[in-house]
Amino acid sequence: MSFRPSGRAADQLRAIEFQRHFTMHAEGSVLVSFGDTRVICTASIEDRVPPWLRNSDQGWVTAEYGMLPRATNTRGGREAARGKQGGRTVEIQRLIGRSLRAVLDLKALGQRTVTLDCDVIQADGGTRTAAITGSYVALVDAVSKLRKQGKLKSNPVHGQIAAVSVGVFDGQPVLDLDYAEDSRAETDMNVIMNEAGAFVEIQGTAEGHAFRREELDSMLALAEKGIGELTALQQQALAG
Amino acid sequence: MSFRPSGRAADQLRAIEFQRHFTMHAEGSVLVSFGDTRVICTASIEDRVPPWLRNSDQGWVTAEYGMLPRATNTRGGREAARGKQGGRTVEIQRLIGRSLRAVLDLKALGQRTVTLDCDVIQADGGTRTAAITGSYVALVDAVSKLRKQGKLKSNPVHGQIAAVSVGVFDGQPVLDLDYAEDSRAETDMNVIMNEAGAFVEIQGTAEGHAFRREELDSMLALAEKGIGELTALQQQALAG
Amino acid sequence: MSFRPSGRAADQLRAIEFQRHFTMHAEGSVLVSFGDTRVICTASIEDRVPPWLRNSDQGWVTAEYGMLPRATNTRGGREAARGKQGGRTVEIQRLIGRSLRAVLDLKALGQRTVTLDCDVIQADGGTRTAAITGSYVALVDAVSKLRKQGKLKSNPVHGQIAAVSVGVFDGQPVLDLDYAEDSRAETDMNVIMNEAGAFVEIQGTAEGHAFRREELDSMLALAEKGIGELTALQQQALAG
Amino acid sequence: MSFRPSGRAADQLRAIEFQRHFTMHAEGSVLVSFGDTRVICTASIEDRVPPWLRNSDQGWVTAEYGMLPRATNTRGGREAARGKQGGRTVEIQRLIGRSLRAVLDLKALGQRTVTLDCDVIQADGGTRTAAITGSYVALVDAVSKLRKQGKLKSNPVHGQIAAVSVGVFDGQPVLDLDYAEDSRAETDMNVIMNEAGAFVEIQGTAEGHAFRREELDSMLALAEKGIGELTALQQQALAG
Amino acid sequence: MSFRPSGRAADQLRAIEFQRHFTMHAEGSVLVSFGDTRVICTASIEDRVPPWLRNSDQGWVTAEYGMLPRATNTRGGREAARGKQGGRTVEIQRLIGRSLRAVLDLKALGQRTVTLDCDVIQADGGTRTAAITGSYVALVDAVSKLRKQGKLKSNPVHGQIAAVSVGVFDGQPVLDLDYAEDSRAETDMNVIMNEAGAFVEIQGTAEGHAFRREELDSMLALAEKGIGELTALQQQALAG
Amino acid sequence: MSFRPSGRAADQLRAIEFQRHFTMHAEGSVLVSFGDTRVICTASIEDRVPPWLRNSDQGWVTAEYGMLPRATNTRGGREAARGKQGGRTVEIQRLIGRSLRAVLDLKALGQRTVTLDCDVIQADGGTRTAAITGSYVALVDAVSKLRKQGKLKSNPVHGQIAAVSVGVFDGQPVLDLDYAEDSRAETDMNVIMNEAGAFVEIQGTAEGHAFRREELDSMLALAEKGIGELTALQQQALAG
Repeated sequence: MSFRPSGRAADQLRAIEFQRHFTMHAEGSVLVSFGDTRVICTASIEDRVPPWLRNSDQGWVTAEYGMLPRATNTRGGREAARGKQGGRTVEIQRLIGRSLRAVLDLKALGQRTVTLDCDVIQADGGTRTAAITGSYVALVDAVSKLRKQGKLKSNPVHGQIAAVSVGVFDGQPVLDLDYAEDSRAETDMNVIMNEAGAFVEIQGTAEGHAFRREELDSMLALAEKGIGELTALQQQALAG
Repeated sequence: MSFRPSGRAADQLRAIEFQRHFTMHAEGSVLVSFGDTRVICTASIEDRVPPWLRNSDQGWVTAEYGMLPRATNTRGGREAARGKQGGRTVEIQRLIGRSLRAVLDLKALGQRTVTLDCDVIQADGGTRTAAITGSYVALVDAVSKLRKQGKLKSNPVHGQIAAVSVGVFDGQPVLDLDYAEDSRAETDMNVIMNEAGAFVEIQGTAEGHAFRREELDSMLALAEKGIGELTALQQQALAG
Repeated sequence: MSFRPSGRAADQLRAIEFQRHFTMHAEGSVLVSFGDTRVICTASIEDRVPPWLRNSDQGWVTAEYGMLPRATNTRGGREAARGKQGGRTVEIQRLIGRSLRAVLDLKALGQRTVTLDCDVIQADGGTRTAAITGSYVALVDAVSKLRKQGKLKSNPVHGQIAAVSVGVFDGQPVLDLDYAEDSRAETDMNVIMNEAGAFVEIQGTAEGHAFRREELDSMLALAEKGIGELTALQQQALAG
Repeated sequence: MSFRPSGRAADQLRAIEFQRHFTMHAEGSVLVSFGDTRVICTASIEDRVPPWLRNSDQGWVTAEYGMLPRATNTRGGREAARGKQGGRTVEIQRLIGRSLRAVLDLKALGQRTVTLDCDVIQADGGTRTAAITGSYVALVDAVSKLRKQGKLKSNPVHGQIAAVSVGVFDGQPVLDLDYAEDSRAETDMNVIMNEAGAFVEIQGTAEGHAFRREELDSMLALAEKGIGELTALQQQALAG
Repeated sequence: MSFRPSGRAADQLRAIEFQRHFTMHAEGSVLVSFGDTRVICTASIEDRVPPWLRNSDQGWVTAEYGMLPRATNTRGGREAARGKQGGRTVEIQRLIGRSLRAVLDLKALGQRTVTLDCDVIQADGGTRTAAITGSYVALVDAVSKLRKQGKLKSNPVHGQIAAVSVGVFDGQPVLDLDYAEDSRAETDMNVIMNEAGAFVEIQGTAEGHAFRREELDSMLALAEKGIGELTALQQQALAG
Repeated sequence: MSFRPSGRAADQLRAIEFQRHFTMHAEGSVLVSFGDTRVICTASIEDRVPPWLRNSDQGWVTAEYGMLPRATNTRGGREAARGKQGGRTVEIQRLIGRSLRAVLDLKALGQRTVTLDCDVIQADGGTRTAAITGSYVALVDAVSKLRKQGKLKSNPVHGQIAAVSVGVFDGQPVLDLDYAEDSRAETDMNVIMNEAGAFVEIQGTAEGHAFRREELDSMLALAEKGIGELTALQQQALAG
C-alpha cells in the first residue's frame, strides 16, 4: 500500500491527458490534465514582433499564465480586478516562456510572435509543469498549421520538452506531487527536460529542511523517468 | 431558406447547453454554451460581506467577467497583464451583478457574499447573455449546497432569470445573434427577464440607424419567446 | 397636488437651461442645467485620430465624464487621486460617446477627433441625461465654428439627439427623476432619442421588482414627450 | 501706456471676484476669478481624521487640485483617465494644503477633516494663487456653518491668507501675471502672506536668467501690495 | 557654546564631501555628503530626447530622486513596490531638474538627454540641497567625458549652482539644518544660487508661525554665505 | 593562462568583501562586493507582522530588491517612476526572502518582521547571489542588536547560508560569473546552500543548449566549493 495520499507509487505520474483543438480560434489549443489539475494552453501566432526585434531576422516566444479565481479550493482574487499580476504569476509565466524558447528556432519562425496562454481552470498542484507540458503540444499544433499554409519553409520546432515536479514527501522522493502532497512536502523541485534527457531548467526549493545531495540525485532520477513518460504521451497525443 | 448566416429561423435560439459541476472546487460551476459561445460560470459563497454591509443583516452578490485572451478570433490583451479591466468588461460585470441580485433575497442569504465569476473560454457573440443565463444555474447549485449543509433556513433564491440578445439584422428582427450577425447588426439589444415575463434589465443600442418603436416591439416579442425557452432549459438542466 | 417630492406633474421636466459659451477656450462649451443638476459640457476638436483610424478617411467622437468631488451631498473621492475611474464613470462616458456618434457623420468630419468632456459641478439626479443633452448643443457649436473657419465642406451633424430619464416612482411612471425620486424609484430608465422619435439607446433597470410590459410602454411614452420638449429647447438655445 | 499685454499697470491686479455659495452641497463653495482664471473652491468638513491622527485631539486640512481638460487653450489629458495625477498637480495641491493649515488651529477644529477641492474651469495663469485665495473664503464659510450649528466652541480660523504671483516680465517686476505674461516671464514667484504682512510660503523660480537680490526685493514689495488688496477684497466678499 | 543640537555655529555648514567616480558605469557619479546625509548622484547622458523635442535642435535635462527604504530612522515603504512615487518625491525631482537646467545650454548639448539620478542612501536632513549640489559635480564630470570623446564642440555648462537650506530654529536663523533641527524648525527655506550670487530658486515655508521680512533677509544672507562656500568646495573637488 | 575574460581560474571566486555598518539607521547594514558587483543589504526589524500572522506566535522575513537606474552600463528605467516592479525584480526578491527564511526560526523571532532591502548600486553579474550572501551578514548583525537589547531570549538564526552562481562558459564549468561571462554563458545556475553543504535552493537555466547531467554535477561541485569559501568569509567578517 502506498504512503502517498493519492495511493500512487512513488514514481507514478497522475493520469495525463491532452485534449487537442479544445477551443476553435487559436492556432493551437490544448486542455491538459495532470490528474485533477486542468490547464487550457493556447498558442497564438501573430505577424508582429516586440519593438526590440523589429528590423531583425527573428521572431519571439512569450507566455502568459493565469488562474481562474475559483480554480482553487478557496476563491483567489482576480488579478485583472486587482490591477496587478502577483509575484507567483510573474515567476511562472517567465519560466514557461524560457522553457518553450528552448525548443524553437527563432530565426526559422521569422518575424512572428508565438504567445502561449496558460489558463488554469482547475488546480490540484503542479500547474506550472502541466502548463509547460501542454504548451509544447499546442505549440506543435500551431506551427503545423502555419506549415500547412505554406508560411514556414522549415520546421522551427527543433526539440521536445516536458516538465514535471518532484519532491521529498514524508522523507521519500516522489514524482508529480498533487496539492495534498505539495502542501506538506519538505522539498519541491520543478524539472524541465528535453527528449534527449538534458536539462532545460531546474528549480528546487527546500520548503522545510535543506536537502542533501543524495536526495537531489534521487529526485533527478524520478524526474528523468517521468519526463520520459510525458514526452511519449505528448508524441502519442500529437499522432492521434 | 434562412437569411441568417447561421441558417437559423429569425426566432430560433442557438443550441443551448448547461454542463453542471464543470470544475470541482466551486459551490456552483456551470459551463454554458450558446452555440460556439462557451462561458465558465462559477458561484462562490464566502462567509464575509463588503465593508459597507458589516453589522447589517444582509449579504451581497457580485460578479466578475473575463475573457481568455484567445477566446476570440484574434488574440486580445490579458487584462491582468495590462493592469486594468477595460470599459466593456466593467460594464458587463456590473450588468451580471445587478441581474443576479434581482432574484436573490439578500437578507435570507445572511452575512455572506456570492461571487459569480464568468470566464469566456470561447466567444462567438452573446457572451454577456450566456454569462447571466449560466450564472443563474450556478447560483442555484451553490445555494442548494448550502441548504443541504443546513446553513440556510429558507431559500434566498426567490425568482428565475435568463438573458438573451435580440437585434435587427438585414432589416429584420432576429433572436440570439452570433458574432457574424452581431458585427453587422443595425441594432443590438440585451434583455434580461424573469420567469414571469417581467423585465429586469433592457439595454438597446442603435449601431447604425436609430430604431423605431415598432422595431423595438418586435424585438421585445422575440426576447420574450427566447427567454421562455431559456428558463425552461435552465429548469431542465437543474432537474437533470 | 403632486405625489412627487418636487411638486412636479408626472410628465413634467425640471427647469432646463443651456448656457452657451460658458468657458472661453473650447470650440463648444455649454453649462446645462436640469433643475439643480449642472454639467459643464465642452466639445474639443483636434486634428488627430486614434491609432486605429490613421490612414482611414474618417474621424472619431469620444466622451469623458467626471464629477467634482463635492458635486454631491457627501464628498466622493477624486478619481484622479485614486488613480482609477470607477465602473459607473466608465459606463456613463461610453454611453455619451455612443450616443453622440449616432448623429455625426464621421467621414464628413475628416481626420479629426471630437472629445466631449462632461463635468458635473452639481448633482441632483439625471447627470448622464443632462450630459448627453448638453453635449449635443456643445457639439453643434464646435462644428459651426469649424465650418465658419472653412475647415468643413459639409455639415457632419446629420441628426439631433436628447436624453431623459423615466422611472416608476411610488407605483407611477414619472419623467426626469431628481435625486430624491431616483433613490426611491422602483425602476430607472434612460432613453436617448433623435428628433424623429426613433431610439438611439435604451437602458432600463429594475431597482426593486421587475417591471411589466405595460409599465415599459408608459415610461417610453413619457420619454417620447420629454425628448420632444428637450429637442425644442435645444433648438431654441442654438437659435439664441 | 502699459508695456503689459493686458494693458495693466505693473502693480495692478486683474479684476478679482468671489462668488460665494456657488454650488449647493458643500459647506463652503466659492467661484473665484482672477481675470479670466476661474476656479471652483469648495470646503468640505467631515467627521473623520486620517489614520495617523486617530486618538489624537486634533483635526486635519488637506487640498486637492484639478483642471478640467479643456480649461486650457489646447485640451489636456484627464488625470483620472490616465490613472495618475501629474507632478504639477501634486506640487500645487500640497502647496494649497500647507498654506491653509497655516491659518487653522487644528485642535480647535476637533476630530474633523477639511478638504479643499480646487477645480480650475478656465485657466489664464495664476491658478494656484487664485485657488489659495478663494479657498480661504470657502474655508471661512464652511467653518461659520459649523459654528452656527453649535459644533465648534471657538473659531479655529486664527488668521487670514491670500496668494499672488509676481514676476519679471520684459525686465520689469509685475504683479499677478496672466498666461500671456507668465509664458514669457524671466522669473515667476508665488507669494502667500497673511493679513499681518508675514510670509507663509515663497516659491520663486528663475525661468530664464537667475534673478538678483534687488529684483527679489522689488517682487516682494509688489506681492505685499497685492496681498494687501486681496485680503481687503476677501473681507469685503465675506461681509457681503 | 552653540544653541544648535549639532554644536555648530549658526552660519556653519556641516562637513561637506564629494566622492567622484563613485560608481563605474555612469558618465558622472558622485557620492555627496552633507554631514550624515549621503546621496549618490549620477549623471547619465543618452543619445535621445523626449518626444516633444524630436526634430528640434536641443537636448534635455531631467532628474529622478529616490530614497532607499532604510535611509531613514524608521523604514519607509519602497516606492517601486507601492507602484507610485509620493508627492514629496515628485516635488523634489522636479526641483532638481529645474535647477540643473538653469546652468546647461540645451542647444549646445545637442539631441541628448542628461538624467540626474539622486538616490539617498542615508538621510539626516537636507537631502534635496545635497542632491542638487552633488548633481552639479556629476553633471560637469559627465559633460567633460563627452567633450574628451570629441562629441561636444563647446561646453554646454554655462554656470555653476549649489543649494543649501536655511531656517529659523529656536528663534534664530541657521544654515544647513540637519534632521534634528529641521524637525523642530519654525521656518524652512531651500535656496539655490549660482556662482554670481543670483537666485535660481527659492522655496520658503513657514512651518509654525509666518516669518517676517527681516527673518527672510537674515536667512537669505546665511544662504548666500553658505552657497559661496559650497561653490568653492565644488571647484576644489572638480580640480582634485 | 585563463580562458575566462577575468583571468580567473574556473573555480575561483571574485574578490569578496563585506563592509558592515555601512549606513547608520538600519539594525543591520552591509555593503557586499563580489568583484565590481556592489549591493547594499540592510536588515530592518519592526514590531509588527503581516495581517495573516496577527494573533499567531511567529514573525516573518521578507525581502525587497532594487537596482539604482545607473547601476548598469546603460541606464535602466526607475521602477518607482514606471509604477511597477519588473518580472526579474519580483523573481529575485522572492528568492531572497525564501532563502533567508530557511535559516531563521520564525517562532523565536516573535511577533516581528525582518525586511531585507537589497539595493544594487553597481552591477557586474551575480547581483542576486551577492544580495543573499550579504543579507545573511546583515541579518546576523540585526538579530545581535536585538539580543543585546534583551529583546530576544534565544538566537532565532539557526543556520548559515550563502549563494553563488555557476555556469558553463565556453564549454567549461565556471564559478561566480561576472557580467562578461554571464552574458555569453550557455548555462547559468544559482545555488544557495547552508553551512552543512545542503541545498536551500537551486535554479538552473539553459541559456543556449540544454545541459547534460555530467555538466550539472560539475557545476554543483563548483558551487559547493564556492559556498564553502563564502561561508568562511562571512564568519570572518562577522568576527571582525
